[in-house]
Amino acid sequence: MKIVRIKKAGQSAWARMDKEDEFTLLDGAMAPTKQHARLGQAGVSTLPACDPANFLALWNNSRVAAEKLGRAIPTEALYFMKPQTCLSGHGDKVPHPGQGHNMILEAELGIVIGKKAKDVPLEDVAKVILGYTCINDFTAKNVVGKDKSFPQYTRGKGFDGFGGVGPCVETTRPDPEARIRGFINNRMVQDYPVKDLIIQPEELVAYLSRQMTLQPGDVIACGTSLGAETVVAGDVVDVTVDGIGLLRSHII
Amino acid sequence: MKIVRIKKAGQSAWARMDKEDEFTLLDGAMAPTKQHARLGQAGVSTLPACDPANFLALWNNSRVAAEKLGRAIPTEALYFMKPQTCLSGHGDKVPHPGQGHNMILEAELGIVIGKKAKDVPLEDVAKVILGYTCINDFTAKNVVGKDKSFPQYTRGKGFDGFGGVGPCVETTRPDPEARIRGFINNRMVQDYPVKDLIIQPEELVAYLSRQMTLQPGDVIACGTSLGAETVVAGDVVDVTVDGIGLLRSHII
Repeated sequence: MKIVRIKKAGQSAWARMDKEDEFTLLDGAMAPTKQHARLGQAGVSTLPACDPANFLALWNNSRVAAEKLGRAIPTEALYFMKPQTCLSGHGDKVPHPGQGHNMILEAELGIVIGKKAKDVPLEDVAKVILGYTCINDFTAKNVVGKDKSFPQYTRGKGFDGFGGVGPCVETTRPDPEARIRGFINNRMVQDYPVKDLIIQPEELVAYLSRQMTLQPGDVIACGTSLGAETVVAGDVVDVTVDGIGLLRSHII
Repeated sequence: MKIVRIKKAGQSAWARMDKEDEFTLLDGAMAPTKQHARLGQAGVSTLPACDPANFLALWNNSRVAAEKLGRAIPTEALYFMKPQTCLSGHGDKVPHPGQGHNMILEAELGIVIGKKAKDVPLEDVAKVILGYTCINDFTAKNVVGKDKSFPQYTRGKGFDGFGGVGPCVETTRPDPEARIRGFINNRMVQDYPVKDLIIQPEELVAYLSRQMTLQPGDVIACGTSLGAETVVAGDVVDVTVDGIGLLRSHII
């Protein structure tokens, strides 16, 4: 099942995607209601595919990238936060922060939380995960490393629009062989399988739930692999995950 | 004026503090309504003094601490994020994360944002600041530095309850000489003036608004100074800021 977030008459809501442009609204328990919506109807639009209190993101979680870059394989998830205000959705414009910012794409798998989760054992993790999405963890790379005493992940990854999430939440767990890909103007620059993630989604959610309480709508970006290239104003940047869909961002 | 967040009949709202235990509810424009509430009434309680989409916090923003610890004086604000789920209010219980965590207090001045703020010039900053509060930026210090390749600020400072904010938002800007103090079981361990902050509140908000959009209810912890000592279960930990009030946390 594919789930989206839509705006209808000023209200935002979770909805089931029935067709590309037709939706059935879901209630608080994610059960279908009798309310429907269609893209093209006045006052209906799609939103980023999450509604996070917390937008968590992983560093150094690709085995291939860690090996190539000579980084140690982490035994615990290493994470930072992106501000809620950096969220953008499928088809949205993402402002380049301007001269002096080396903006790159980062194609990632995202996990969207469905239920409040604290100290969840690995065997119960599937119950608290709503599903999976595509994430573009845009980064001003030079900003992160600008100050030698303090890596600025939140600043460099927190500009408005820098958290692309969408187009939907797929409730089926992606296959280990499913590819996560990044494209700049239709040129593929990133391409790696879900199985390249050192800490896999289920382990990650179980671990994070031991550090803090996860909330419904929270989103976790699983970290990127090699090939995260520079993007500039005018570029059309896509992230795809097999079985989930395509998230498009227009850099302006 | 002192502003608090209260819960009344299951709804949370901003309110003006008329007496220690009497409040007048405020509307969306922070103007008084005709609704009142009193502590002791069924269904009325106080909440953390903010309602953040984003909980930002500064690193290395005390001149005295930077000099003593041999850190360079930063020219730009260095900040990380704490998760929304770490919020706690005045009088709340804060769980110690357990063995292997060196939990410390960090007494800080907090800024609460009142209006959406992007690229705000320094001379207009006062208009977007709702007011000032006391913050305890609790930290599991050894967790932050555990992995040499990646400082874990969000994890080490993000455990449930680790963001104490309260008891109120004071709309008057604290004096440069106002003291920010931390106490463990009534023993004063931190004591420094507002003027010790390298980047002062107004500059800080102007700067942050150039990096991202700040939202009403967002909170910024201005960073701590020397004396942040270890706390253990059973401790009563207070933060005071002259002119604002006292924020108490019970470590359990």
